[in-house]
Amino acid sequence: MAFNIQMIPLKWRVGHAGRGDAEPVEFVPAAVPGAAQIDWARATDMPDWNIGVNYLQYRWMEDCFWIYRADLPKTTLGADEQLIFKCRGIDYKYEVYLDGEIIYAYEGMFRPFELDISRAAADGGELSIVVYPIPKNPDRAPDSREEASSSCKPAVSYGWDWHPRLVPSGIWDEASLCVVKKERILHAEVRYELSGDLKCASITVDAKIGDASDTTDSAAAAAPPGDRPLLRFRLRSPDGAIALESTDLGTPLILTDVKLWWCNGYGAPALYEWELLLERGGAAKDAANGRVGFRKVSLEMNPGAWSEPADFPKSRSHAPITLTLNNVPIFAKGTNWVNPEIFPGAISAETYRPLLERAQAAHFNLLRVWGGGIVNKDSFFDMCDSFGLMVWQEFPLACNRYPDTQQYLSTLESEATAIIKRLRKHACHVIWCGGNELFNNWSMMTDQSLPLRLLDKLCYELDHGKPYLPTSPISGMAHGCYLFVYPDGREVYKAMAEARHTAYTEFGVPSISNLDTCLWAAPRDMLFPMEKNEATVAHHAFGAWDGADDTWCSIGTLRRYLGEPASLKQLIEWSQWLQCEGYKCIYEEARRQKPYCSMALNWCYNEPWPTIANNSLLNYPASPKPAYYAVAEACRSRLASAAIPKFAWRPGEEFTAALWLLNDGQAPIGPGAADVYLEYGGERHFLLRWEHDGAPANGNAAGPTLRHRLAVDAADAGGVSGLGAAAGEGGAAGAGSVSGLGGASGCGAKFSELKLVISAGDMSSEYRLIITE
Amino acid sequence: MAFNIQMIPLKWRVGHAGRGDAEPVEFVPAAVPGAAQIDWARATDMPDWNIGVNYLQYRWMEDCFWIYRADLPKTTLGADEQLIFKCRGIDYKYEVYLDGEIIYAYEGMFRPFELDISRAAADGGELSIVVYPIPKNPDRAPDSREEASSSCKPAVSYGWDWHPRLVPSGIWDEASLCVVKKERILHAEVRYELSGDLKCASITVDAKIGDASDTTDSAAAAAPPGDRPLLRFRLRSPDGAIALESTDLGTPLILTDVKLWWCNGYGAPALYEWELLLERGGAAKDAANGRVGFRKVSLEMNPGAWSEPADFPKSRSHAPITLTLNNVPIFAKGTNWVNPEIFPGAISAETYRPLLERAQAAHFNLLRVWGGGIVNKDSFFDMCDSFGLMVWQEFPLACNRYPDTQQYLSTLESEATAIIKRLRKHACHVIWCGGNELFNNWSMMTDQSLPLRLLDKLCYELDHGKPYLPTSPISGMAHGCYLFVYPDGREVYKAMAEARHTAYTEFGVPSISNLDTCLWAAPRDMLFPMEKNEATVAHHAFGAWDGADDTWCSIGTLRRYLGEPASLKQLIEWSQWLQCEGYKCIYEEARRQKPYCSMALNWCYNEPWPTIANNSLLNYPASPKPAYYAVAEACRSRLASAAIPKFAWRPGEEFTAALWLLNDGQAPIGPGAADVYLEYGGERHFLLRWEHDGAPANGNAAGPTLRHRLAVDAADAGGVSGLGAAAGEGGAAGAGSVSGLGGASGCGAKFSELKLVISAGDMSSEYRLIITE
Repeated sequence: MAFNIQMIPLKWRVGHAGRGDAEPVEFVPAAVPGAAQIDWARATDMPDWNIGVNYLQYRWMEDCFWIYRADLPKTTLGADEQLIFKCRGIDYKYEVYLDGEIIYAYEGMFRPFELDISRAAADGGELSIVVYPIPKNPDRAPDSREEASSSCKPAVSYGWDWHPRLVPSGIWDEASLCVVKKERILHAEVRYELSGDLKCASITVDAKIGDASDTTDSAAAAAPPGDRPLLRFRLRSPDGAIALESTDLGTPLILTDVKLWWCNGYGAPALYEWELLLERGGAAKDAANGRVGFRKVSLEMNPGAWSEPADFPKSRSHAPITLTLNNVPIFAKGTNWVNPEIFPGAISAETYRPLLERAQAAHFNLLRVWGGGIVNKDSFFDMCDSFGLMVWQEFPLACNRYPDTQQYLSTLESEATAIIKRLRKHACHVIWCGGNELFNNWSMMTDQSLPLRLLDKLCYELDHGKPYLPTSPISGMAHGCYLFVYPDGREVYKAMAEARHTAYTEFGVPSISNLDTCLWAAPRDMLFPMEKNEATVAHHAFGAWDGADDTWCSIGTLRRYLGEPASLKQLIEWSQWLQCEGYKCIYEEARRQKPYCSMALNWCYNEPWPTIANNSLLNYPASPKPAYYAVAEACRSRLASAAIPKFAWRPGEEFTAALWLLNDGQAPIGPGAADVYLEYGGERHFLLRWEHDGAPANGNAAGPTLRHRLAVDAADAGGVSGLGAAAGEGGAAGAGSVSGLGGASGCGAKFSELKLVISAGDMSSEYRLIITE
Repeated sequence: MAFNIQMIPLKWRVGHAGRGDAEPVEFVPAAVPGAAQIDWARATDMPDWNIGVNYLQYRWMEDCFWIYRADLPKTTLGADEQLIFKCRGIDYKYEVYLDGEIIYAYEGMFRPFELDISRAAADGGELSIVVYPIPKNPDRAPDSREEASSSCKPAVSYGWDWHPRLVPSGIWDEASLCVVKKERILHAEVRYELSGDLKCASITVDAKIGDASDTTDSAAAAAPPGDRPLLRFRLRSPDGAIALESTDLGTPLILTDVKLWWCNGYGAPALYEWELLLERGGAAKDAANGRVGFRKVSLEMNPGAWSEPADFPKSRSHAPITLTLNNVPIFAKGTNWVNPEIFPGAISAETYRPLLERAQAAHFNLLRVWGGGIVNKDSFFDMCDSFGLMVWQEFPLACNRYPDTQQYLSTLESEATAIIKRLRKHACHVIWCGGNELFNNWSMMTDQSLPLRLLDKLCYELDHGKPYLPTSPISGMAHGCYLFVYPDGREVYKAMAEARHTAYTEFGVPSISNLDTCLWAAPRDMLFPMEKNEATVAHHAFGAWDGADDTWCSIGTLRRYLGEPASLKQLIEWSQWLQCEGYKCIYEEARRQKPYCSMALNWCYNEPWPTIANNSLLNYPASPKPAYYAVAEACRSRLASAAIPKFAWRPGEEFTAALWLLNDGQAPIGPGAADVYLEYGGERHFLLRWEHDGAPANGNAAGPTLRHRLAVDAADAGGVSGLGAAAGEGGAAGAGSVSGLGGASGCGAKFSELKLVISAGDMSSEYRLIITE
């Protein structure tokens, strides 16, 4: 909205009280958008919640009423003007008062609102927002995420295996006071339908003008001829040329030669810009604008899935999960996105930018925005539009049994409606999903749960034709595991090779965080030796997940494979080594299972605070761990890959691995050659030269199986390998580079490194394994 | 509606033409409700479609326009009266004309309509209904069920493995001309919500009165005081006493001490009768009435299902399918119901009655009304209400890929809305389902298919809270197989023992029909020897299903097990013997798998014409095959059962079987004893006396495994057993009775009978197996 708005700055203050109608003892300055907790901590010099167990000191804030106040200045309004208070979201249940009189009340953080407060213009006044204590389901386990199970408040803040219990409250998205013209564009949205051949778009402009009357047509009819308001629509193609211009919005506008929006790795994310001008007497009075990307999205059956099940008695075939963009089946490579901040109110576009740039650089094309977190701010979706990052958006339901009660359904309907209407216009948005892991026994929702049927209904009505999943995983898909060695004792190599799923929409391998992140969270003496203490527990190194007590640091696994680390630095290097190899294994194995498998999304991408150990690829706020680079390599469109049966090999054992060419590109891989080596004991052993025939477009090719008898003295020959540059930025395994081997000798290590190198130009890969007695 | 209606009989005639606006060459008398095909056949002496291949002579009728006509008599209307033409359904696409002017047009057979034709009262006139040729999707395979894939016309008429291609057209449900008062009850529906303890019902009466104004309140407000129309609601409890009476329908009425409606085997199907009187000045002017059964229904997770899947990567848990009535989990025993007539217009309450009485007598509690057929007439649901037969109702989608097109969705929405509003008031109706086998590769619809999302949405909106399944089977459930020996070579005994599913919602074992049914369909010389000919193919003995060419007669299986039958009678006895044993095996094995399994519904119950072979339990129209009685025995609430590994045993082999007590009752089975025998070679061998501890309420108990070395001369000792009384009415295996053994000697039989008898009073069972070299 470029015209017509005069913003009036507000100075907010916030205080807390035990009742909503009580006067706070003290007010402190409030940042809007933000969170009451941040304001209070800043004003009262509370310690940083990111460090140690400081976050525990914030716990009392859950049960306060937070009361925001702002003084409205006296404002002169013209007869054609209104004074508006508008807000994009308040977390979570709240009431808005003008001079002590309630003017709005709502439960939910995702529905924006706009209030006409013109009556307060002449004399000024006081705006007050009372935010209730966070919702807690009294029938469920206290101090657990189950407290979030009867509200639409994102569950993650109630505590997760990578998120402390720290629950935000307050004005978390933009709020503004402004003077606007009564005659203005209240709403403008561009919808389209593509022709079957995707060459033409039939565009509908849905616009609403404010004044005495509500709609364009009747407003126009009431005005004297020659002075009717006119809506002018302009669409510019990605090169800036005007592709369409019309003042007749009663019928669909036809755009030909559509440049389609493509996701990362498949083409340019072409975006058209549109502008809607409200004109009267030849002059522009108001404007709205936006972007539109033309694409068709669907979920299609995975090849092979229709032929299952084969035998009688016969159940259903698995659900479709091949994401198809503009009729092209996509192998969806990506990650699970979580809140990038503990306090969503602190998120800005600059929070998102480095995270999304790295996602694009990692060859990702799909982000699953997990239902335990928030629905992100507009800038997130704007950037995803620009970067070609498709978004799978979940509604705020996760790992809980949300009820069939009328109260919950009513809140959910209102929140979901707001979410759908906000996101549906983004080209990047491709999948709706009811929430996380709702059909598993830690949630206990089912196909019959009314909240999920309601969400399906709303998506059907408001965003017709876009895929809807009730939850993840559904039939055919799978989540987990989140360890290098699974609870049943299988290594990730074996477990993934034995798996057969249509999509791996969560899988994780943990590591200890980068050194600087660890030292942010806790002092060095609480980190090494890595033991259970209040800081390592709080920051998720121990007892974070029920798979094992030493999750996520997996110190037991490290000791079993590698021995006793000599230093914190070495511990981190070892831990991150396993994360790198584990993630490469899973992404590449999922790709080998294409096309029956069509999706690989690791858990998780980012994190909301400095963890000591986590499955994430990035440390807070956006620092890559080595696994980020390893995953980026594994997600290259064209790749020479090895299916490796295990991590730890014995001297004298026959090493085996199967070679593959993986191709997600739309062009074939041509014939070529790859030289394959094993490096161990300080020597490079040439295994074979693979003269391959290439691979078809969007298809893989299996190659020979490597076989090599490891030397009987392999474990002690040449000393112990170190990690060299692998932990540094840009240090992903490069073809032919041998990592530095020094540095680890003399420590408690009990292995030597076994490196498999596939040298194949820009498709080269490396795998770092071990030889151990 | 007891008052206020003066019916005017209409004399219908029908003719056909090549165009809708052409005049038929000839009209013949038409029965309404009925079908144009029947009328035409009757009038022109066409041969009975039930016999031989006569149905082929009806094929041309598919592509006609059928034009119904009726002359409207002159009728004197009072100022307060209207002349109404109303109809409950016309099959399929049609237009209604009054004196040549179109007054209504619709596509779909399930939406009733009511037309005010008062203007034709004074002078009379002509009513004309033009029924279009049957819908055929031009993009799909001709002469196949796929032709039904873009319409809401039930697919079965286009041909199925037990239904000839014979597609009805015409006025298939009641149509009437009547004079009514303008002030009358237009609509009345009773809804309720039960309290958590199911003891109270909060009743809402949704009523609409016709006159100048539409609603009760405004009608009342417009009338002079003292002469306002009044609605009086009365509810009578099952014993006839008035349980509630009120003229204040603005607030819910509270019924206490509710007598709940129970399904067959779990309690009485208590029905309350309600009456709504429209009164003015103390006199009743109109009345509406109906029945209501109070019950709560849900689908709950099957015990054990939440603990699956166990391993990572982890998919979803199976969908819930334990039908829970009034908070009591039901083991759903029943069958798949298909159209009881080729022409649904020929169905009356008397068609339904013997079928439903037999269903009740067979201890069934659930009928799955399969989506390939019609939604039955009201009398079906009325009887199911009375008999405690729960109904799983599918929308008319089956084994096709119904499209996402706006045209189809629009028709489906209209039809489904009418269906939901009609059925939701019946206590018997417990499950909505999108249709049959839509998530399998012969249909190729998926979770993303818009028709199924639309149906979920409509059910959510119009019948909130009742279970909705997108299709059957879904995750955890299974269909098939339909043979005694499965396509992969396993016997039904082995396949079922290896199966593990939450519900068996279709399974079948075929047999040749009863002798009189066979002889109705074809002359004896076309039936024996049983070979492929036009009659046996047409009536489904050969080539009916792609599992094997000799389906459904399974002559190959019979020959392999039993030898060459000496007569048609013996062939039928043999075939029906396998059907009996196969069905007993499946029902009892499904019951043994309780509670992980919670449902067993065979395919199918009835049939629409005289088949020569079919999986049905009843021959057309309602004649039990021996399998009907065998199934009734297997579905007794309390049962001593044997898990038998196979059908054919060798002389000298060790016979084994595991004993079980099966209890679906709400009371435990007390301790007791069962004597177990094997009969073969003309001798009864006592195996053991099982002194059992009983079984818990609604639970089973496993007993000992029987072991007996069969005599080495078992196959030739004592000759060949015959079937005796087993084929006759009431001839189900009775405890301790030994079937007559004579009659089969001298034929080509190559087996002797091996009968397992469990003698346990009213829980006794028998299994008839064979010994063969």
